[in-house]
Amino acid sequence: MDLENTLLMMPGPVPVAPRTLRAMAKPMINHRGAAFSEMYDDCREILAGVFKTQNDIFVISGSGSASMEAAIGCTINKDDTIVTIENGKFGERFKDIAGRYGNVVPLEFEWGEGIDLGIVEEKLSEGAKAVTLVHNETSAGIMNPAKEVGKLARKYDALFIMDGVTSIGGDVVEVDEWGVDIAVVGSQKCLAAPPGLSMISVSERAFSAMDDVDRMPYYLDLKAYKKSADKESTQTPYTPAIPLFFALHDALNIVREEGMDARIKRHRTGAEAIRAAVAAMGIDMLPKLNEHSSYSNTVSAMKAPDSVGGNNIKKDMLERGIVIAGGQARLSDRIFRIGSMGNFTAHEILVTIQQLETVLHKRGVVPGHGAGIQAASNVLDTLL
Amino acid sequence: MDLENTLLMMPGPVPVAPRTLRAMAKPMINHRGAAFSEMYDDCREILAGVFKTQNDIFVISGSGSASMEAAIGCTINKDDTIVTIENGKFGERFKDIAGRYGNVVPLEFEWGEGIDLGIVEEKLSEGAKAVTLVHNETSAGIMNPAKEVGKLARKYDALFIMDGVTSIGGDVVEVDEWGVDIAVVGSQKCLAAPPGLSMISVSERAFSAMDDVDRMPYYLDLKAYKKSADKESTQTPYTPAIPLFFALHDALNIVREEGMDARIKRHRTGAEAIRAAVAAMGIDMLPKLNEHSSYSNTVSAMKAPDSVGGNNIKKDMLERGIVIAGGQARLSDRIFRIGSMGNFTAHEILVTIQQLETVLHKRGVVPGHGAGIQAASNVLDTLL
Repeated sequence: MDLENTLLMMPGPVPVAPRTLRAMAKPMINHRGAAFSEMYDDCREILAGVFKTQNDIFVISGSGSASMEAAIGCTINKDDTIVTIENGKFGERFKDIAGRYGNVVPLEFEWGEGIDLGIVEEKLSEGAKAVTLVHNETSAGIMNPAKEVGKLARKYDALFIMDGVTSIGGDVVEVDEWGVDIAVVGSQKCLAAPPGLSMISVSERAFSAMDDVDRMPYYLDLKAYKKSADKESTQTPYTPAIPLFFALHDALNIVREEGMDARIKRHRTGAEAIRAAVAAMGIDMLPKLNEHSSYSNTVSAMKAPDSVGGNNIKKDMLERGIVIAGGQARLSDRIFRIGSMGNFTAHEILVTIQQLETVLHKRGVVPGHGAGIQAASNVLDTLL
Repeated sequence: MDLENTLLMMPGPVPVAPRTLRAMAKPMINHRGAAFSEMYDDCREILAGVFKTQNDIFVISGSGSASMEAAIGCTINKDDTIVTIENGKFGERFKDIAGRYGNVVPLEFEWGEGIDLGIVEEKLSEGAKAVTLVHNETSAGIMNPAKEVGKLARKYDALFIMDGVTSIGGDVVEVDEWGVDIAVVGSQKCLAAPPGLSMISVSERAFSAMDDVDRMPYYLDLKAYKKSADKESTQTPYTPAIPLFFALHDALNIVREEGMDARIKRHRTGAEAIRAAVAAMGIDMLPKLNEHSSYSNTVSAMKAPDSVGGNNIKKDMLERGIVIAGGQARLSDRIFRIGSMGNFTAHEILVTIQQLETVLHKRGVVPGHGAGIQAASNVLDTLL
């Protein structure tokens, strides 16, 4: 019996509010008509407040990876040097994308370990057209120092391309203050819309850099997005995924209604509750922090006890109706991850922790006296 | 007062069935779980019967243009020659995309005029890695000779890349019999799903050609789509637009329920009714056909009377609640276009013709004695 009540607690897609789901079920409209333009304009206005930027913002009908590629493909020529900072799977993805467009200088740190800003500065001082950073590394649950990398990028005159896929809309991001030339977010993460769209902000510096690029991608051509957005009646260059725009617009209205300060506080409290709970259960976090890094406030990555493995924890949770994530690629089975992302409330966190504690107890790795749920509850007092 | 009852009679997006809209409003699922894999598999199976192919078929979260780019970007190196056949805006788009990846040999015919196969053969005989053709040129309402171009492509050992965006699912397409190496369709056209997805079939020959390509696009990397689809549990390489997959699956079930033969007959009858009606009103079709071309059966392009202009006809129709299309780019204001695409019935065709006749009568270009509606009605007898 499928009651459609599985609880998604992975780091995206996140549960979508019923009102947002209903917004999606409206009849199609002409994507070249006034109603679409107004909707797109309103989305861009709300997004400017979420990104904290005066830069142009576009909505691309494609996942976060599409926008990551747009950022690199439109600014990097074959012979341009691009420094990619990696301490997780999405940092690696930037490296892979960059390798298809330019001359990559990969800075590889252990997945889940804080990055060394000294090495970043060293590489940038040798000259680079751009540097990429994953702000919130979803695969490892670590928050990287975007503000500091932004300063270094400006110091050495490199474009700063930032993956904010799982931070923007859920944690503090200051695109203009940090000097982020291109920032990317996915629809299905902190913004709590369905997957399928990504949003990208582009600075004047980034647009200028595009003038030197010979062979930009076509579907992901940011100049084409700008040209269509600058029309008297705002458009997208190619047919947009209309229902996903309906949903995004509603989801962004929810963000506006809550307010970014409250939204960030809620995300931080949720993640803190998860961290407190797992600490009380004797489970270690994956990230190895340094002075420039911190735990992610939208996804928590925990080391799986050797005797159980991350995949078993994930499987046991799924049997109890809760979808959490395991580890990706080299972290497979070594960790498990729980999202605190989107429109969650204290309820979902509590239920997840309670079930996790039961699962780990049945697997023989925690005593099961409720230390986890108690610790979570203490933190969540502020949210309830 | 917006009753959401505007009738979309443009060549996509087309109206989406209420059951398909409702299918979209389901809660999100894990895109790496079994439910998603089953849905994707079933979509691919139905699509194989629509494309008439044994080739691999993938669903890309992106519009038809994204899949057009995937076809070219994954098979063409910088120094490869690619012949692009153009007799409308989407033929031109292939030329533009090809120019970003390879050495284009553009074959430009007047928009709306039948292509000259002799010239195509001449160019292919000089050697080319690939040739592109828009099967049903949406911008000009003309059907191009895909089967014949397929034969020439095979004769001169070129890959045959076909835009079937507005023919597949509504008219006769035989991917395997015609030797189409890569064929593309959009979700929001004849298949009557919402916009945002495109489907692409890829032959073994096309995959082999990819081995020589240095720098494939990332988001549109067809080898990555194949690798993910070939996993034990079928996946997409990047996060898919889940609600659009729900909708596509339902829309494809409608296609299966109707059967392709009946669906093609219905599309042909609808277009024939439109052509009969405009002929009775003394309006000329845009296409200048030759022995190898025919009128499109999914979108009809008519010359706008000089005294009125296509944009006025479009505007007048919109005021009456019916969205038709004008001309694009160089055809702007010179033509108007009416779709007969998707799950339409005789009702929508009749209503559109009746309103068109009224609009043209009020503009003083047709007498308004109902010759158009009568002619449409005669043809539609078989559909009603």
